[in-house]
Amino acid sequence: MFPFDAERLERLMAGAGIDLILATSRHNVRYLTGGYYLPTFKRLEPIGLSQYMPALGIPRGKLEQAFYVGVSVPDVDEVQALEVFDTLWVQDRHWVHELRRSVAGLIAGEAAQVVRKLGLSGARIGIERAFLPVEAFDVLRQELPEATFVDATPVLAELRAVKSPREIETIREVHDRTAQAIRATLAGAQPGETSRRVEERLELEMASRGLHRIFTFAGIGPSYNRYPSDRTWDPGRIINVDTVAELNGYLADLARMASMGEAPSLALELFDACLEVQRRVRDAIGPGVPCREIHRLGWESIRGNRWGELGNFIAHGLGLVSNELPVFNPETEKTLEPGMVVSIEAEYRHPEVGHVKLEDTVVVTSTGCEGLGDFGREWCHVEWRPGVPA
Amino acid sequence: MFPFDAERLERLMAGAGIDLILATSRHNVRYLTGGYYLPTFKRLEPIGLSQYMPALGIPRGKLEQAFYVGVSVPDVDEVQALEVFDTLWVQDRHWVHELRRSVAGLIAGEAAQVVRKLGLSGARIGIERAFLPVEAFDVLRQELPEATFVDATPVLAELRAVKSPREIETIREVHDRTAQAIRATLAGAQPGETSRRVEERLELEMASRGLHRIFTFAGIGPSYNRYPSDRTWDPGRIINVDTVAELNGYLADLARMASMGEAPSLALELFDACLEVQRRVRDAIGPGVPCREIHRLGWESIRGNRWGELGNFIAHGLGLVSNELPVFNPETEKTLEPGMVVSIEAEYRHPEVGHVKLEDTVVVTSTGCEGLGDFGREWCHVEWRPGVPA
Repeated sequence: MFPFDAERLERLMAGAGIDLILATSRHNVRYLTGGYYLPTFKRLEPIGLSQYMPALGIPRGKLEQAFYVGVSVPDVDEVQALEVFDTLWVQDRHWVHELRRSVAGLIAGEAAQVVRKLGLSGARIGIERAFLPVEAFDVLRQELPEATFVDATPVLAELRAVKSPREIETIREVHDRTAQAIRATLAGAQPGETSRRVEERLELEMASRGLHRIFTFAGIGPSYNRYPSDRTWDPGRIINVDTVAELNGYLADLARMASMGEAPSLALELFDACLEVQRRVRDAIGPGVPCREIHRLGWESIRGNRWGELGNFIAHGLGLVSNELPVFNPETEKTLEPGMVVSIEAEYRHPEVGHVKLEDTVVVTSTGCEGLGDFGREWCHVEWRPGVPA
Repeated sequence: MFPFDAERLERLMAGAGIDLILATSRHNVRYLTGGYYLPTFKRLEPIGLSQYMPALGIPRGKLEQAFYVGVSVPDVDEVQALEVFDTLWVQDRHWVHELRRSVAGLIAGEAAQVVRKLGLSGARIGIERAFLPVEAFDVLRQELPEATFVDATPVLAELRAVKSPREIETIREVHDRTAQAIRATLAGAQPGETSRRVEERLELEMASRGLHRIFTFAGIGPSYNRYPSDRTWDPGRIINVDTVAELNGYLADLARMASMGEAPSLALELFDACLEVQRRVRDAIGPGVPCREIHRLGWESIRGNRWGELGNFIAHGLGLVSNELPVFNPETEKTLEPGMVVSIEAEYRHPEVGHVKLEDTVVVTSTGCEGLGDFGREWCHVEWRPGVPA
């Protein structure tokens, strides 16, 4: 019935001493509604002198009392948007009828009134401290002076860390399409093309696959600067395309390598080292494995060759947010669970050839892990058509 | 030397009693830098358990003391991004070296230290209350306990209200391309296509023109629900495409009309009424004209025909933010100035044919106004190729 694990949420809220979650960020509202977010503000929040900010409230253990506060004005009407979405489980819906002035504050004010009616005005209320704007928080504090406000960010992040089968399907899809878009972009390159042009073509390859490009690094060797620029991709040079794309809010994060014509053998050697790191880390990933062990093994693998000092290893969770849970470092006590999604970054920066990087994403299964978007992982030697100008 | 009117900023800050502006929103940082914003977070801010949030500080009348606080970590390094952008006027630059945890709070903490060093710890500091997250504000209040925090939103909105020639060029360009993208989308439609498919094709038409689509209404009559859905665009039905697109941060906001085959004569009559409202309002726009007069005239024009009760008129400013200043309502005392950009919406909702709307954008000139993106304003009768399945 609910798009998230209701028992897990109740347990996490209890552990954090939170009576009521008041989610207001795009990713958490979207997560808790099961996909609904007002389309008008999916890509850009500012409006007039404020920003659109919906509120979704969930009292601990009482999902039947959950409420949603949004906007209903003639041109931007969530009642109409919900007719199209049509599957929101939250039935107690409230609307503010002003958009251009202080909409975040008005939404917060309406949410505070609902909290009062639920008899929770003295509750411990979990807010999203890293997202809730001051304008909205001031209204909450004023309207709910007996409430205690605590940070709900860790609870919501923990809740999101284990993905449902439906989420995994979307994450697989966004990775498959992203891998194909990167490969098409690389294979279609011409000598002398700028990294900015590579980014532009990737935007098109993504759009034609229904993806929304979030950002792109396109590093042409031997520079380590990967921000798209006027730098040209000339024969013999390598490129490292590292990009994030979005589908229904879920992110793909992949990095692939190519060279214009033949690659320097040094670059291929570094790339083989990246492949070897990916293989060893994937072999180790599975349920119950400590995240710090993955971190240790990744670094051991990165260091385990003659270029080790030039290497870097990062593993991070991925979902509606980049670098979400789980966290991989020497201190964490957490272990992997089936349904967690892990992005694995293996990279070397060599002054002669540049930035060599392979980034894959896997989902933890009941027995190990499964690659998502494992397309075009091999080095792409671009064969351009002679005579066609760049 | 500065990408904004420094004297105007000083005057506005003095009028609001603000000693130091601390801008942290994407649009205002982008505005004050003259275009620079870290590409990695241009489209999506969340990262780890926080969000990317840069800070740009400007002491009143002392632009040489302006400072910028950003991020420098190995994979996300604003020092590298600024090598590509290379024209940031702010020389006093500071970096935090952590991204995944509390980055907004860390940036705020670093900004507070710079404020202290400038001897402004007891100053009246203008923050963006509708955007600054609680996490960052708590750090500012803790590190600067003697400071008074006030809202800088109106000052920055007033500053942005008059566009520079360079800004107008970008706003013209984004409107031209958007108008062409809408027309190509409408003209390429097939009978029975869903409004969701119209949105998808518009996304591609925009991407191929270097635009970033922000949102799209696509209302197929006689429904007033304009959210893209499974509703099909069948022969004889009208469609109203109303969309926002972005180029280098600046927005276009245009609405155009079409019918699959011939339009109902009633729809064309309503459309002519929209054209007439646009003409009358454009004729009236010019420097020194009170904004409330435009509002009055727009409503008078909307009401001045037999469908008046079904009509709606909106005029609003447009730039880096939708519905920015100037504001048009009966209360405002403001007048139009050259360089202001005005989006004009004329619409009728008729139960027999649906939502008929024409939205244009103009820039106020020294003598009147000039249309931006005045392409494809005429009604588009889609002539599909018989035999080609939808």
